Amino acid sequence: MNTPIKIGIVGATGYTGVELLRLLSQHSAAQVRVVTSRGEDGLPLADMFPSLRGVYDGLTFSHPDKAALHECDVVFFATPNGIAMQQAPQLLEQGVRVIDLSADYRIRDVATWEQWYKMTHASPEWIAQAVYGLPEMNHAAIRDARLIANPGCYPTCVTLPLLPLLQQGCLKANAPLIADCKSGVSGAGRKAEVANLFSEAGDNFKAYGVAGHRHLPEIRQNMDDIRSGHAADLVFVPHLTPLIRGMHATIYVQAASEVDVHAVLSEHYAGSRFVDVLPQGRCPETRSVRASNLCRIGVQKAPSHGHNTWIILSVIDNLVKGAAGQAVQNMNIMFGLPEHAGLDNTPVLP
Amino acid sequence: MNTPIKIGIVGATGYTGVELLRLLSQHSAAQVRVVTSRGEDGLPLADMFPSLRGVYDGLTFSHPDKAALHECDVVFFATPNGIAMQQAPQLLEQGVRVIDLSADYRIRDVATWEQWYKMTHASPEWIAQAVYGLPEMNHAAIRDARLIANPGCYPTCVTLPLLPLLQQGCLKANAPLIADCKSGVSGAGRKAEVANLFSEAGDNFKAYGVAGHRHLPEIRQNMDDIRSGHAADLVFVPHLTPLIRGMHATIYVQAASEVDVHAVLSEHYAGSRFVDVLPQGRCPETRSVRASNLCRIGVQKAPSHGHNTWIILSVIDNLVKGAAGQAVQNMNIMFGLPEHAGLDNTPVLP
Amino acid sequence: MNTPIKIGIVGATGYTGVELLRLLSQHSAAQVRVVTSRGEDGLPLADMFPSLRGVYDGLTFSHPDKAALHECDVVFFATPNGIAMQQAPQLLEQGVRVIDLSADYRIRDVATWEQWYKMTHASPEWIAQAVYGLPEMNHAAIRDARLIANPGCYPTCVTLPLLPLLQQGCLKANAPLIADCKSGVSGAGRKAEVANLFSEAGDNFKAYGVAGHRHLPEIRQNMDDIRSGHAADLVFVPHLTPLIRGMHATIYVQAASEVDVHAVLSEHYAGSRFVDVLPQGRCPETRSVRASNLCRIGVQKAPSHGHNTWIILSVIDNLVKGAAGQAVQNMNIMFGLPEHAGLDNTPVLP
Amino acid sequence: MNTPIKIGIVGATGYTGVELLRLLSQHSAAQVRVVTSRGEDGLPLADMFPSLRGVYDGLTFSHPDKAALHECDVVFFATPNGIAMQQAPQLLEQGVRVIDLSADYRIRDVATWEQWYKMTHASPEWIAQAVYGLPEMNHAAIRDARLIANPGCYPTCVTLPLLPLLQQGCLKANAPLIADCKSGVSGAGRKAEVANLFSEAGDNFKAYGVAGHRHLPEIRQNMDDIRSGHAADLVFVPHLTPLIRGMHATIYVQAASEVDVHAVLSEHYAGSRFVDVLPQGRCPETRSVRASNLCRIGVQKAPSHGHNTWIILSVIDNLVKGAAGQAVQNMNIMFGLPEHAGLDNTPVLP
Repeated sequence: MNTPIKIGIVGATGYTGVELLRLLSQHSAAQVRVVTSRGEDGLPLADMFPSLRGVYDGLTFSHPDKAALHECDVVFFATPNGIAMQQAPQLLEQGVRVIDLSADYRIRDVATWEQWYKMTHASPEWIAQAVYGLPEMNHAAIRDARLIANPGCYPTCVTLPLLPLLQQGCLKANAPLIADCKSGVSGAGRKAEVANLFSEAGDNFKAYGVAGHRHLPEIRQNMDDIRSGHAADLVFVPHLTPLIRGMHATIYVQAASEVDVHAVLSEHYAGSRFVDVLPQGRCPETRSVRASNLCRIGVQKAPSHGHNTWIILSVIDNLVKGAAGQAVQNMNIMFGLPEHAGLDNTPVLP
Repeated sequence: MNTPIKIGIVGATGYTGVELLRLLSQHSAAQVRVVTSRGEDGLPLADMFPSLRGVYDGLTFSHPDKAALHECDVVFFATPNGIAMQQAPQLLEQGVRVIDLSADYRIRDVATWEQWYKMTHASPEWIAQAVYGLPEMNHAAIRDARLIANPGCYPTCVTLPLLPLLQQGCLKANAPLIADCKSGVSGAGRKAEVANLFSEAGDNFKAYGVAGHRHLPEIRQNMDDIRSGHAADLVFVPHLTPLIRGMHATIYVQAASEVDVHAVLSEHYAGSRFVDVLPQGRCPETRSVRASNLCRIGVQKAPSHGHNTWIILSVIDNLVKGAAGQAVQNMNIMFGLPEHAGLDNTPVLP
Repeated sequence: MNTPIKIGIVGATGYTGVELLRLLSQHSAAQVRVVTSRGEDGLPLADMFPSLRGVYDGLTFSHPDKAALHECDVVFFATPNGIAMQQAPQLLEQGVRVIDLSADYRIRDVATWEQWYKMTHASPEWIAQAVYGLPEMNHAAIRDARLIANPGCYPTCVTLPLLPLLQQGCLKANAPLIADCKSGVSGAGRKAEVANLFSEAGDNFKAYGVAGHRHLPEIRQNMDDIRSGHAADLVFVPHLTPLIRGMHATIYVQAASEVDVHAVLSEHYAGSRFVDVLPQGRCPETRSVRASNLCRIGVQKAPSHGHNTWIILSVIDNLVKGAAGQAVQNMNIMFGLPEHAGLDNTPVLP
Repeated sequence: MNTPIKIGIVGATGYTGVELLRLLSQHSAAQVRVVTSRGEDGLPLADMFPSLRGVYDGLTFSHPDKAALHECDVVFFATPNGIAMQQAPQLLEQGVRVIDLSADYRIRDVATWEQWYKMTHASPEWIAQAVYGLPEMNHAAIRDARLIANPGCYPTCVTLPLLPLLQQGCLKANAPLIADCKSGVSGAGRKAEVANLFSEAGDNFKAYGVAGHRHLPEIRQNMDDIRSGHAADLVFVPHLTPLIRGMHATIYVQAASEVDVHAVLSEHYAGSRFVDVLPQGRCPETRSVRASNLCRIGVQKAPSHGHNTWIILSVIDNLVKGAAGQAVQNMNIMFGLPEHAGLDNTPVLP
């Protein structure tokens, strides 16, 4: 076997970090060398995440200032927004490739980014060089990328089914396109916040961010990139549902007449490794992709309905295809490995 | 105090039955006399539902053939579909009032009912006399009704916010109206089915009935009753979410220009006892109505969107306002009691 | 009716606070006048707890410095440990009765308290005057108390079944007495802590505090108060289980020969309003007391076992009989009301 | 690579069946050839378990009468109790090795088995030849076995920590040994039963089987096999907790004086692949082994306690080390493969 890829992870104390560590532990060509944490310098990984006992023995968190990140082939940022934009440029200049799981490089229009993320961007010059890491959309560009902006979970779940429909002009322009999305609570991260306590989020269902969620401009940018003229039609409502992992998008589109939405999606993704279109009329459930890098899609024409509305159901594991798994998929493409290396585990059901 | 209302419950071994028993135990003018069950003749109530120990001591399930239902003032049917249509007529003829929590008398068009429920209706002559028991819609008719068709949970959750909008002509005709609904698992009843096991429905989210759900014609009938010409626009997708109790409807409507949907709803329900419209921009959560007869509604115009789409969020407890609580509310109206008698408990949070 | 009791609540932004508010809203002799919060001065209650919309309209949180607590008949402290010991004495001196839901006055030995709670006690002179508010144990003293130390949830759940057994000398001395306890997550309070996030505490089960939990000395003190000579035998292990509300104690005792533990418990609690001993062999479930002030107890002799071990199962709702409900029960006793005033709601199942 | 092992699975429509399929799909030396189901003849696997779409394409359930099980190297029975005892003997006589995940061959005393399982044993002559498949206890015998009785989940979780303590005579004889166990709901199987509905088992905690559970004689047999003279001391109480996967045993033992229970366990399992003893004082959580074949153990001496009681905490994933994973571990040993083949996935957390 060839030399393994030397990997660094910045900010590995959150859920996307520990999920990266899980996936990379099962990747035969990957070697995690450096894991940083500002607050946990010196702590063995397994002391924070007992699920990793015996997996990364010897590896400890190190303070970013002391960590030899520049000796890595690739560094993942599993940090809150606003960190990668400060620290990635130096690594990039040292020739290290960077995969940023945060939102720092996802939006190409700096003003839009700053408006939604309420920060001044620290390295706007790198935005144009970042490749939006949705492999089903940008495969070729990812191969050559130095800096990957790993997509958000909602944008992944919503864009994958829309991609062929927009590309092939299947949707009526000037008709509302509604993405009613439901996310498990791990999507909110491993931060101490009252709203995400078990006793708050458990046995409860609610919408949030209805007046504007940061993933709205990201989905709209994707729509415009695929086929401009539809972005303004999008209505996006996220909801919180008492799952740990899992995301479900219910998308309502107005198809141009005579289009068979199910056929378009099935054909487009027929050879896809990670996108699975179910037979017509089947509804995907989130657990059917739990802990895996898959997106499963169901399609149904709205029954007994006076319009040409189609219902598209799309599910992912928000921590895998919606974050860490997609990041590994991007790494595989960048380093010429099989796209599914380390990502071919069977979903955990029940 | 006056003589209490003598009450019978047919089929009280399910969730709507035990919820009726809970609510009626706290109703000072109600006296449950007879509780029937075909399979549990002679069993004390508290042996099936330990939460009722000490509450209905002395009361046992009795076989319907032996039960003195005709001596009751009102009989609730908390049975599967297809039972009330057989047993209610005899009671009605004996002068007993009937509140049917099943779907037997909800749809006025017999052919439609038979198509969706896949049975021949046993007492179609009673359908026309049944009053659809949504008090916010049919208050006057309920007062004089002998037979109440208690609404389904989804139709209640969706119709309440649409009612003033349709009445006042606020919605664009010929535009899709989407009701994306999420239900807790108790809505599926207390039947032994694999799909509703903890290990199937837990930590999982899915749509179901996308090709056609029985509550679709019921909601459409309501829409037509309020203002014909919109029913065919409805798209309705139910989802199962890992809550025990709770239902959330996310409704997307195209408003006629210049209409302030929030203002219309707020004004209409300003004096309502059970419908609470939140200040603009607030999102209701299901737990804010847990174990209570309330419906809470949030309203938001879709942000940065090229159309006049409004987002309406509506939550109920599917077992209370969506079933047993509404049935008690109907009983109160029928018997000239304060509408909220026995129904003024504060929601249980957390 | 007489003048209602004027009530103040200090620190009502946590779970025991909102539960007090729920219970008192249904109590016909109670009037909540003042609700304090250091951080939320001026905020309407319903803005923090939407379940209270329409229930306490007009009532807002006020800063403790501005609040007219001294005009109340009774003040509940629903605060973290260490607050009541500072603020209660002044109110007590002004003639206000105090019910402290925190641990400040529960342990009579100051040194023990300071060792376990890692603080210097601010008002040790009041400890001796505090009555431990377990009504089934201290009913007479509660009636005349000025200051109630409301018991912890674990001590309530464990002491209630042990009480008659210790009183009547049913247990073998010098034999380990094991209390294996399981608590829902709301017992940890409404604090932003990673360990209590949905994604940490959900779908997970663990012991905690095995090396020593603060409720251990409290249970031991109760045991000594009832019959000294057994306290040192107690082994207590708490566990966290993914419930919102609910606590289950599984207690293993060595009975003196010939004692029928089930008979002792059944007879002792035969007339009790809030303690319900099930028929032999029945297992209580936490949901059978959900949202109610009940404790249900099951008893079973260990099967095919070489010793005289009995298994006692005890369940409460940790927020009601384990906190706010017991506090209201104490208030009722102190003010000469029926003990169950405001506490006779039927458990919420499912 | 060598020829893969040809595998048959009888009764793969339950949770242990689908878990076997998940684990074997990741096992490079395993090839599942035949999967039987009496009710689902001809159904593609992925139609029942959408998580297996793309994993076993082409494989369908076949009726046991038509299935070429005799051409397999090994057949797993993932059936309800009472099936393997009828069907395994013919396969064994044809030279097929059998791993029975049900209880049919676990208890060597036929009368005891028949008493607890309430059936007449159909092939008692095979019981003596069956090897109890707990590898940490019976490794050598498993290697040569033709028929494996795969242990129950509770017996695995309880026996693993007791094994070295009994072997080395660390426990006081004639002292109660208490195993207070908590299981996730998947342990009850994928059967349509009201007690395991989401709305029954969710947000609820209860003991069950307190008067006698079938795993009691199995654990006692293990104890007797390891060191006779302790079995009668065992008290075993199982509880149901709202997890899908996961089992937690809290075991209370009286140690012989001067024994350091933590040291004994740590040393015994120092080289173990699947049993992980935590540093003293740490509490294992069920999610730290989720979807993996690990058992993690924590040990603590009971604090401030008058006896020599130790608390042992043991966690497994009931579907993996408690069922399907242990079955694969046994297969690996029987076929001379590395014991961890197909079983080295990292636990899924969160």
